[in-house]
Amino acid sequence: MSRRESLLDLSHNLYPPGCHLPTMYYPPEGRAVGLEEIRGPHDLKRLSVAELEKLAEELRNLIVEVTSRTGGHVGPSLGAVELALAVHSVFSSPQDVIIWDVGHQAYAHKILTGRRASFDTLRQRGGISGYPERSESEHDHFGTGHASTSVSAAMGFAKARDLRRETRQVVAILGDGALTGGLVYEAMNHAGQDRTHLIVILNDNSMSISPNVGALARYLARVRSAASYRGAKARIKRILERVSPVDLVGAIERIKGSIKYLLLPGVFFEALGFTYLGPVDGHDITALQEVLRQARDLDGPVLVHAVTRKGRGYEPAEAEPGLFHGPGPFDPRTGRLHRGDGTTWSQAFGAIACDLAAADPRVVAITAAMRDGTGLSEFARRFPDRFFDVGIAEGHAVTFAAGLAAAGMRPLVAIYSTLLQRAYDQVVHDVARQGLPVVFCLDRAGVVGEDGSSHQGLYDLAYLRHIPGMTVACPRDVPDLRALLELGLRMDGPLAVRYPRAVTPPALSGEGRGPITRGRGELLRAGSDVLLLAVGTMVEVALGAAGLLEKEGIRAAVIDARFVKPLDEALVLAWAARTGHVVTVEEHVCQGGFGSAVLEAMAAAGLRVPVQVLGVPDEHVAHGSRREWLDHYRLTPAGVAEAARSLVSHRQAAAGGET
Amino acid sequence: MSRRESLLDLSHNLYPPGCHLPTMYYPPEGRAVGLEEIRGPHDLKRLSVAELEKLAEELRNLIVEVTSRTGGHVGPSLGAVELALAVHSVFSSPQDVIIWDVGHQAYAHKILTGRRASFDTLRQRGGISGYPERSESEHDHFGTGHASTSVSAAMGFAKARDLRRETRQVVAILGDGALTGGLVYEAMNHAGQDRTHLIVILNDNSMSISPNVGALARYLARVRSAASYRGAKARIKRILERVSPVDLVGAIERIKGSIKYLLLPGVFFEALGFTYLGPVDGHDITALQEVLRQARDLDGPVLVHAVTRKGRGYEPAEAEPGLFHGPGPFDPRTGRLHRGDGTTWSQAFGAIACDLAAADPRVVAITAAMRDGTGLSEFARRFPDRFFDVGIAEGHAVTFAAGLAAAGMRPLVAIYSTLLQRAYDQVVHDVARQGLPVVFCLDRAGVVGEDGSSHQGLYDLAYLRHIPGMTVACPRDVPDLRALLELGLRMDGPLAVRYPRAVTPPALSGEGRGPITRGRGELLRAGSDVLLLAVGTMVEVALGAAGLLEKEGIRAAVIDARFVKPLDEALVLAWAARTGHVVTVEEHVCQGGFGSAVLEAMAAAGLRVPVQVLGVPDEHVAHGSRREWLDHYRLTPAGVAEAARSLVSHRQAAAGGET
Repeated sequence: MSRRESLLDLSHNLYPPGCHLPTMYYPPEGRAVGLEEIRGPHDLKRLSVAELEKLAEELRNLIVEVTSRTGGHVGPSLGAVELALAVHSVFSSPQDVIIWDVGHQAYAHKILTGRRASFDTLRQRGGISGYPERSESEHDHFGTGHASTSVSAAMGFAKARDLRRETRQVVAILGDGALTGGLVYEAMNHAGQDRTHLIVILNDNSMSISPNVGALARYLARVRSAASYRGAKARIKRILERVSPVDLVGAIERIKGSIKYLLLPGVFFEALGFTYLGPVDGHDITALQEVLRQARDLDGPVLVHAVTRKGRGYEPAEAEPGLFHGPGPFDPRTGRLHRGDGTTWSQAFGAIACDLAAADPRVVAITAAMRDGTGLSEFARRFPDRFFDVGIAEGHAVTFAAGLAAAGMRPLVAIYSTLLQRAYDQVVHDVARQGLPVVFCLDRAGVVGEDGSSHQGLYDLAYLRHIPGMTVACPRDVPDLRALLELGLRMDGPLAVRYPRAVTPPALSGEGRGPITRGRGELLRAGSDVLLLAVGTMVEVALGAAGLLEKEGIRAAVIDARFVKPLDEALVLAWAARTGHVVTVEEHVCQGGFGSAVLEAMAAAGLRVPVQVLGVPDEHVAHGSRREWLDHYRLTPAGVAEAARSLVSHRQAAAGGET
Repeated sequence: MSRRESLLDLSHNLYPPGCHLPTMYYPPEGRAVGLEEIRGPHDLKRLSVAELEKLAEELRNLIVEVTSRTGGHVGPSLGAVELALAVHSVFSSPQDVIIWDVGHQAYAHKILTGRRASFDTLRQRGGISGYPERSESEHDHFGTGHASTSVSAAMGFAKARDLRRETRQVVAILGDGALTGGLVYEAMNHAGQDRTHLIVILNDNSMSISPNVGALARYLARVRSAASYRGAKARIKRILERVSPVDLVGAIERIKGSIKYLLLPGVFFEALGFTYLGPVDGHDITALQEVLRQARDLDGPVLVHAVTRKGRGYEPAEAEPGLFHGPGPFDPRTGRLHRGDGTTWSQAFGAIACDLAAADPRVVAITAAMRDGTGLSEFARRFPDRFFDVGIAEGHAVTFAAGLAAAGMRPLVAIYSTLLQRAYDQVVHDVARQGLPVVFCLDRAGVVGEDGSSHQGLYDLAYLRHIPGMTVACPRDVPDLRALLELGLRMDGPLAVRYPRAVTPPALSGEGRGPITRGRGELLRAGSDVLLLAVGTMVEVALGAAGLLEKEGIRAAVIDARFVKPLDEALVLAWAARTGHVVTVEEHVCQGGFGSAVLEAMAAAGLRVPVQVLGVPDEHVAHGSRREWLDHYRLTPAGVAEAARSLVSHRQAAAGGET
């Protein structure tokens, strides 16, 4: 049944699944084209669907093979293999613009656009990034990493095209998870108003990173149950054919739900000014090509709804899509993950959060689509009513927490350092300005490792420290983390606690630390020649440096400042004056962070002592292991010892020559 | 016709306008209740609609009378007078929670909740705030200022209520402008999923601050044309009653549009899990009370769509709703605004932006609902294709700009300093990380004045300075602003330029400044005793201080650093060493800003010279005039001179006693 003949096609732009034109099938003549022959997306244009399907298989094998060694976003990328093939066979990159939202589903795209040979360097230092990067390929039109940016960026490309009267197509591919982020809605509202031609492909696998949440996810689920579309049509027809005019009222009442159902798929997106096409099977290359061509030829903004399966084609990933969202290395045959050694900070946080919730009914936990990543799975199981996964919606997470706190609850907001950047204003405006007791639990703070530049947790001290009323703390070990979270529940205002993507260290001075006082640091080691002032992960490093310096006869004092704000000025200034040399160490950029707080305190006190600020320099840090980057930046015992040695030995020269 | 009897009520939760139960009219017995007798919202409960209507008139008179002297958000508050009366007569604050989004429509609420007598201190230092403030009244459940936060906060209150098994109602009142912000969508998606009972009142006046934008605004406009609802119903009924079964296909085809129309009002909000009630006349107290009672008694989240008129009841404000959104003082009789003296920074920026666009076809301008506020009205008129008002959607504005820049355009993103906080992550992740040439034009940077704590532009140097690849500059006068914007168009990466909510000063060293070099400051005055290092508005203050010091025999050098990042280290360090004393001055908090950048540079260079960092201390700054607050914080020639004098005179003691 063609669309024109449709009896009751109330939703003129609904594209019934499977209702595409038949595509010719060319049996392969001789040897089929292999992945190694694809030098760029143009090579896909001449291939039959059967050949593309064979490439899909090869792509899946390569993705599983490489990520089993490197770790990476296996599940999302396996789900988008046919999407990548269909998009690149219909559109002409780099002339046409293709933007992959988040980008962790773009491995097939990377392989197909000239990076097959380098694909085994994925996420390694010096290798290719796990996300699209403009510097890496002309086919990566816009770098991504954080979710929900693609439609905004696509609007930029589309508007530039229209202003220059060019004809390139602009395509954004985003997951249903990304659709929970308000940024997408803002961009669609703009595109819909201006009727700007662009194509948004909704890659709907009904998963965010955790299972997807939100009312809209339910709506998509209803839309996805594709059979109902034609079912509803048939039902309406059947009823109406048998009805007499006198019974019309009853008849209409009976078909009311069905009519609504027919209209349903499009309406949400239509209200935003989009033409809706779908749902279409996102693993059916023929169907995808057809709908993409249709979208290409329409005017205005178009949303193509493709239904896919996360982890498609690799059984372990299909079975455990959450686990295989972004696993570390695994056995490709069995899908068994190689377990890391030791407890991660995320796990430690999750366990403590459970203890706090068990003891205090005011405690609730909030995550933005990172239930597992933030260590809150057990919390969610044990306290389902007090656990809130709000989707990829960090802004809402924070203002929601502010509302809870204003109503007397004690929210723990567990968000990665890099993602709390998305709620900076909500921290300032809704939480800190009102002095509300929200505890921010910043996971992945510091050098993030293989995820690279888009995910670095290197700015949080700088973006939180200047906010009036904030308290900012860095635990050095798990007992500290527990004591700080307990402190947060006793405080009147907000507290941010940051910890790295790493295994927790052994407790540095016994397990039973007792309550912590806000704004108080701790002298861990006395010494007369130089003061090593550290926070968080760098406390262990500073102690190591002090050990190295001792062998050379340099007596280093070590202070764990613990609080970046408020700084323990009395302790810091006293020991700075006593030692006459200060080295500050933080896993954070050197601008506006812990070291700057120390400099500000010393300047305000009129204390002039040489200070060397150690941290990450003023540059974007790419992918590679956390260890490699910490070594590179000399944030190691040897590196800190070297800086201290140099400072001490230059004392006389500096004091004589410059003041 | 009751809802049950409705023949074709396909949208079961549609509330037809005017279709409310009749409310008894009690003629006033003797003297009517006056505003001065309303001590709190409970006093409204016993009043008839006629009495409430009389109060509405009194409220309007008081609002116009006071704001004509103080300035303020006249238009929004006049439009929400009946809403405030209806909400407070149906719900019981403070037991029930009422949250006013943005808050600039809440003047009637303030007057009705115990602040009538103090209302004439509106927005004055020490007086009542122009926004809801938790510290001001128990009826201000949640402080607002920035748009689109109310539903998130309401969700927090509602969840806390449900966890504690309380029964209070939670109501959020937001404008259609706020609906363009993604935060609202994130919150509604959450509420809809959990079916949490709360009431969102959409105060739809078809205006944001400028006329409202976005596809959803069009959708609301279609919904608003209320007559069509009953019209469509009648049309469908008429057609179906005359039809024979054989003609059913044609009949259905003919009513298809009408059916869709019937479904339309609810669908967008229904997809988000809300029950939709409306549209209702937002100036009809009877209708409002009725629909609010209905909303109160439903389960789950409810959206009440009230149609209002901005500026309602005050002719000048109705005629020019944009102008009367938030004017300064005006003549209440004529509505003529008292013109300020001189050119504002916003106006200067707008004129320069036009010149740049005229000369360079790559230049486009983006604003987030602040066309007039940012000075871009003339740009919008002259270059309509290159002007983008994206609604209250700062995140989208920035990522959209990143897309434009990646496609070769040169976007000027004009956003208030306080509101760019909402796009901090987009600045880091989408612009700076990719080194894209976006020029951020931060209006209202520094002490914002009467808008108070929610709108302070005191953090931008701190939240931008640590971002790798950013350039951050502060013009001291208009020629500087022009030269900096021109520089931005020549640069490869992003530039942020900040300027205050103030009248521009006279050009400090002639008009013809010539091109500016990135990262280069300017020595404005030589001197041997102390270096006054300033940026932006504080350059003029520093020069004034130098003049005062000269009379005392203290020779102060003055440098306009111009760039906070990269700092002109060569110039700064040379003069710091030469003078031996440094005072930094900025209209910004003292944490992580310009002063910290100077301290970092000096520490890195091993230069130990006493530095006094002057700026705004670590506290939230309330409302009051900018001048009052700058005086209060001694950011004046006398204040800076005093600090310099003190530093110079303590030289010996500090050098002797502490190092």
